[in-house]
Amino acid sequence: MQLPFLLNWYLNPYHTPLVVAKQLGYFSENDIELSILEPTNPSDVTKIIGQGHVSIGLKAMVHCFAARVRGFPIKSIATLLDEPPTGLIVPNFQNIHSIKDIADKKIGYVGEFGKIMIDHLVRCADMPLDCYEAVRVGMDAAKAILSQQVDAAIGISCFQQIELEDAGIPCHLLRIDRLAHLGCCCFCSIQVIGHETFLNNNPTIISQFVNALQRGAEFTREYPHEAWEYLLMEKPSLNTPTFHKIFLHNLPFFSRDCHNVSRDWNQVAQYVKKLGISDEIIEPNTCYTNDYFNLNPTCAA
Amino acid sequence: MQLPFLLNWYLNPYHTPLVVAKQLGYFSENDIELSILEPTNPSDVTKIIGQGHVSIGLKAMVHCFAARVRGFPIKSIATLLDEPPTGLIVPNFQNIHSIKDIADKKIGYVGEFGKIMIDHLVRCADMPLDCYEAVRVGMDAAKAILSQQVDAAIGISCFQQIELEDAGIPCHLLRIDRLAHLGCCCFCSIQVIGHETFLNNNPTIISQFVNALQRGAEFTREYPHEAWEYLLMEKPSLNTPTFHKIFLHNLPFFSRDCHNVSRDWNQVAQYVKKLGISDEIIEPNTCYTNDYFNLNPTCAA
Repeated sequence: MQLPFLLNWYLNPYHTPLVVAKQLGYFSENDIELSILEPTNPSDVTKIIGQGHVSIGLKAMVHCFAARVRGFPIKSIATLLDEPPTGLIVPNFQNIHSIKDIADKKIGYVGEFGKIMIDHLVRCADMPLDCYEAVRVGMDAAKAILSQQVDAAIGISCFQQIELEDAGIPCHLLRIDRLAHLGCCCFCSIQVIGHETFLNNNPTIISQFVNALQRGAEFTREYPHEAWEYLLMEKPSLNTPTFHKIFLHNLPFFSRDCHNVSRDWNQVAQYVKKLGISDEIIEPNTCYTNDYFNLNPTCAA
Repeated sequence: MQLPFLLNWYLNPYHTPLVVAKQLGYFSENDIELSILEPTNPSDVTKIIGQGHVSIGLKAMVHCFAARVRGFPIKSIATLLDEPPTGLIVPNFQNIHSIKDIADKKIGYVGEFGKIMIDHLVRCADMPLDCYEAVRVGMDAAKAILSQQVDAAIGISCFQQIELEDAGIPCHLLRIDRLAHLGCCCFCSIQVIGHETFLNNNPTIISQFVNALQRGAEFTREYPHEAWEYLLMEKPSLNTPTFHKIFLHNLPFFSRDCHNVSRDWNQVAQYVKKLGISDEIIEPNTCYTNDYFNLNPTCAA
């Protein structure tokens, strides 16, 4: 079957396991013809999948909760990227070393939840919400900093920080999990999400999908050089030194077994309430399932 | 306090998180003066730590069980490397694609358990144990293949396979976990082990040690380029293209939280019995503890 798959962002090195699985035929051998789609606005993804226009795709963990709050019947069936370090990417020449330092600064964010997170930190620091200027910069946080549209922006260490440093701007990361005393960056883990109706109606396909993804992740870990080549076959324009560096920096963050991590879902459920995205703690089990993974053989064989 | 620490092998890129923690002062800020020791024979490590000559060091998971069988009171307190893919490294020109193909071949192994694993596979394939020649090659599996002392040798994909390929010998890996239907290469996960008397007498030091290691692992993941530089400061002779490639290939395998993985200990307990290393299934809880890790703050903060 034809399976349109909606990425959370433009196709980039952190999608490598998915691309490897496609290039090596792990999907097509199960008659899944994966069509990878890129959004031009990442904030569209939850709505598009939540309304069932596209059945399956990627989104960060925090968005999965937000989608449930809005009544979208989506569920995470696998993890692509585990806890990429997320925070304020700050050029070193900016005098920003704590949340207090963002007063009078312009701070870039991708979509609405970035602003919610910064606002939460500002409130916790007993500062007024208008002490800083929030600028929605969409997919181009690094460019927004380079063009001096903003003074700092939310991003991940294995992506925008490298883009900036490769552009000659040494910078540092103020990790949101540290500022908010969370203990992990799991809110930003990238999940494979699907519309529940589609998931319920296609258990075999979904099971084949997650197993193919798992094999792609395993190949990427074991043969990173070859995995990079497969990524370039899918998208030759990624063949730049900066994207290669981004690829290498993502290697430690690809999920190993692609399972949803219960601990992380539990923690983010609490964070989501804390942020005011939901009034009640959303039951994490309504947001994810590992049921589509085959049971692995055990060492007891 | 002065803390001699005995590696499982010569200091190499897969030890980076430990070295980073040392170089960044994570040990010394707790008054732990870490002295890193290299064994000239990896097979000595269990005995040296088991008899308390050195109190703490590294060894693979399977050896921790074997140590208990021999009455050595050692316990794993943390994980350094998670499930590096382990198996027979085979030059492609050798016609070895299954365990049957090792008949009449010379197979290199590091220490005694490598031979036990191959023998187990040979028995499972209904072949006589003397159908192949086992050659103990110690630390130099790649060199033993290059010098044609052996036709193939046990190693890991992120080390000896890269050494060989960089020496112009394309090769492939017959993973032991696949041949033995184990489901993971956790038997080869590298653990931090300590003598129980020392652990019991020094809970604060050990707790500081595992937290420092955890921070070293985190730094290595987030700043691989800088981590590599710290490794070279500790051991400048590693500054070769091959070792750098080995370093990059190890990035996906450094343990993320450095905790012992219960599932893996349970699986390897069964494998150890299967291999005949122990007559009974050894209770995994006697072999490891995560008690020395501080509780992490949760997202509930």
